[in-house]
Amino acid sequence: MGGKLADVGFLGFDVFGTVVDWRAGVARAAAPFLEHHGLRLDPFDFANAWRALYQPAMEKVRSGQRPWVRLDVLQRENLEQLLAAHGVAAGDIPEAELADLTRAWERLDPWPDAVEGLARLKRRFAIAPISNGHIAGMLQLARFGGLPWDAILGAEVSRTYKPQPATYLQPLDAAGFAPAQAAMVAAHNADLRAARALGMRTVFVRRPHEYGPDQDTDLRAEEDWDVVAESLTEVADILGCL
Amino acid sequence: MGGKLADVGFLGFDVFGTVVDWRAGVARAAAPFLEHHGLRLDPFDFANAWRALYQPAMEKVRSGQRPWVRLDVLQRENLEQLLAAHGVAAGDIPEAELADLTRAWERLDPWPDAVEGLARLKRRFAIAPISNGHIAGMLQLARFGGLPWDAILGAEVSRTYKPQPATYLQPLDAAGFAPAQAAMVAAHNADLRAARALGMRTVFVRRPHEYGPDQDTDLRAEEDWDVVAESLTEVADILGCL
Repeated sequence: MGGKLADVGFLGFDVFGTVVDWRAGVARAAAPFLEHHGLRLDPFDFANAWRALYQPAMEKVRSGQRPWVRLDVLQRENLEQLLAAHGVAAGDIPEAELADLTRAWERLDPWPDAVEGLARLKRRFAIAPISNGHIAGMLQLARFGGLPWDAILGAEVSRTYKPQPATYLQPLDAAGFAPAQAAMVAAHNADLRAARALGMRTVFVRRPHEYGPDQDTDLRAEEDWDVVAESLTEVADILGCL
Repeated sequence: MGGKLADVGFLGFDVFGTVVDWRAGVARAAAPFLEHHGLRLDPFDFANAWRALYQPAMEKVRSGQRPWVRLDVLQRENLEQLLAAHGVAAGDIPEAELADLTRAWERLDPWPDAVEGLARLKRRFAIAPISNGHIAGMLQLARFGGLPWDAILGAEVSRTYKPQPATYLQPLDAAGFAPAQAAMVAAHNADLRAARALGMRTVFVRRPHEYGPDQDTDLRAEEDWDVVAESLTEVADILGCL
């Protein structure tokens, strides 16, 4: 080996969908909540609907329509919006329940290959999230799932959201790596396109069930990414991390 | 156990002197450099002299005399100042040599109890540096010594230097803990005094040879810190982290 990504010392990871299975974790937390409040919704559909509000909420920050806020603030607002769309006023639900459900995003299981894959990659590369998640949420997620990050970086360092250039460049600068010495690892082609445009190398991990059985996006590598794999352990195999 | 620091979920660590032995590591890197340049100085004395320039350099940032710069910038300036004091112009030395010697601060051995102590404490607490070191340096130091941090926080988050209140409060805020839910772990009484004044709990680890055999500071706990110990493994013992 040695050839693949020979100049790279740092791997930045997308987390939601790439490293952890947000859909199952959010559905698991939502199920008793929905039942308790008489909402006849499939918990997996609820998870997808919550997630669908994520990009529009971040877009308001990216576009400058509102100042930066941490992701948990957006997730909480999105939850209230989702509940309202189903006729439930957030004000009628105890604060502790809403706060606890929002923290579902900090209690997500890693994909089965993720912990082993990260541990092996860590032997050769410095590894850290470059996620839209805030630092406290990423910290809890790492402790919940045993993700062995070297550091926690991401959107909070730059106070904007991916795919803004600063969300990649500022974490890399903080970690001490030039873009050409770093690779972005993601299950989303758009994330890799943004990273490549800045000079980063790219690793695509296919997660065809991130959004469930009917997923129709990111089913395949849409460009000639430097590495394409089915799992983080396969990334480790390809990069010679035993 | 259970009683000690029962409300605490986060431990912030001073690093230089508390977790790693900067004196031995810097002396090890300096020895061949000094020999090569004909400087007849004891490498341990050289390490202490370099370290002695650290507080005055940070004070210029704390006082607002100069804008914040990362610690490696200060260490490099201090190295040049130290060499000049011994009649050596930094300009006469190849840049790569100066850069490499400055990186000695990223290649310091942990104290013998540190890795085991941190690993045990991590089972109960989120752990991260609250150090004056910059993020990239802390990242390299962690990878060099196998320090199992959950996240890397510290002075770079707040862009000032300890003991300014922001250097404790902003990392805690980023990690999602109130001061009362966090403890500072340090071998330096002044660090703990600053942390306690902000409402943090305090853990003193005695490092009586940090500055060498003739050390005359921080030989004992000067206040009734919540925990006082001789090592990080003893801290883990006291806090019931097996």
